[in-house]
Amino acid sequence: MNYLLTICYDGANYCGYQIQPNLKTVQGVLEEALKQVFGVSVKTYASGRTDAGVSALGQTVNFVADKKFKEYSLLGYLNTILPSDVRVLSVKYVPDDFNARFSAKQKTYAYNFYLSRIDKPYLNKFATRVGYTLDMQKLESELKSLVGTFDFTSLSSTDTQVESKVRTISNVRLVKSGEVYTAYFIGNGFLKNMIRVIMGTAFDIARGKITESFLEIIEHKNRKFAGKTAGAVGLVLVEVNYS
Amino acid sequence: MNYLLTICYDGANYCGYQIQPNLKTVQGVLEEALKQVFGVSVKTYASGRTDAGVSALGQTVNFVADKKFKEYSLLGYLNTILPSDVRVLSVKYVPDDFNARFSAKQKTYAYNFYLSRIDKPYLNKFATRVGYTLDMQKLESELKSLVGTFDFTSLSSTDTQVESKVRTISNVRLVKSGEVYTAYFIGNGFLKNMIRVIMGTAFDIARGKITESFLEIIEHKNRKFAGKTAGAVGLVLVEVNYS
Repeated sequence: MNYLLTICYDGANYCGYQIQPNLKTVQGVLEEALKQVFGVSVKTYASGRTDAGVSALGQTVNFVADKKFKEYSLLGYLNTILPSDVRVLSVKYVPDDFNARFSAKQKTYAYNFYLSRIDKPYLNKFATRVGYTLDMQKLESELKSLVGTFDFTSLSSTDTQVESKVRTISNVRLVKSGEVYTAYFIGNGFLKNMIRVIMGTAFDIARGKITESFLEIIEHKNRKFAGKTAGAVGLVLVEVNYS
Repeated sequence: MNYLLTICYDGANYCGYQIQPNLKTVQGVLEEALKQVFGVSVKTYASGRTDAGVSALGQTVNFVADKKFKEYSLLGYLNTILPSDVRVLSVKYVPDDFNARFSAKQKTYAYNFYLSRIDKPYLNKFATRVGYTLDMQKLESELKSLVGTFDFTSLSSTDTQVESKVRTISNVRLVKSGEVYTAYFIGNGFLKNMIRVIMGTAFDIARGKITESFLEIIEHKNRKFAGKTAGAVGLVLVEVNYS
């Protein structure tokens, strides 16, 4: 049986999604719970990693196991074992060749931030503070200029080990609720730190510290022309779509 | 000097705003910090209490002290002493007769919730889960029916010790961001648990468990006709306005 789980987690207390020895990771607690349920070690495949402190509303993970459980039984079973900051939202049977990462067609990420010279502890739980005055129209138009297919070498971590850094962003939206801004990104895939580098750079462009536009920065194919990697706390993996 | 502080706090780790012996409260940590700064005990007056687990983006607190500090110095000084989940956002000098509670003209509260049969840990940090299907149009129209001046005896805690339970709600708005709904309430004052009882009742009306309308429930002037008090985590004191 090839199972697909959709999971939600608060990344605040985890050293990221990916399993690491002696560190608390989401994959670690999930594989431990699966081992209890199936009685054997189970290898899982997620749609992608999330960094330390990054949360997910709809991360997807598949794994192959011999034992057949009813979807709802497995969901209930796992949720009684998992810590309360990780929940399985759904369980589905998927075809043998399905892989949560390689079968993914589209991902949606959200990045929450607020503007304030002083920390706002309530907002710090789910949003990144930006301490500068920003030209919000410029921020929005620059973010929207990223819709298209580009080589994102300038706008991702230098230690990304992938063959191609070309990705397609199909939609960017900036919305405001109360004093929290959320930038939504929909694309076919995102490189390591890509959204955090995009946001850090967008803040620097919108405050006038970087004078180049995103499209100019992309042209350099060099990470050093972009801004700082923005904080992890504002980032959420919202959903992963399969055709 | 009569000082007015605007403070922001994450209520998650506090037994409410109001000082209580041997319990961690926001007022407690604030008065401790003020004692360090002024060298004597300082009695503070907040715009109102918030329950255990309730947060504030803009709670207001005044106090009288002999020593004169520059606004910005006092702000910085307090923020170096206070725990990181309580921040002073601003300091102002106010007239001698100013009182954060009695001088308040208007308060804004927000209540965040999401709909899901299963807990979503990321959202649980700032929103209350509602596990039922709701008629959202009914929810919104019922909430908006509360705009006006009413006796809120049915829709507040029975152990409220005030002379009159008549309050005026001047505006109610329901907005959605991602999958989180936020109900905003603006009024001249709110009774103990009032917004949480309103929300718990609104959920019961919108799921068909309570068949009476808010206006019918208000007529009874009896708390037992309303629904459960909704969870504290979704509630935030957004701001307090003075003329």
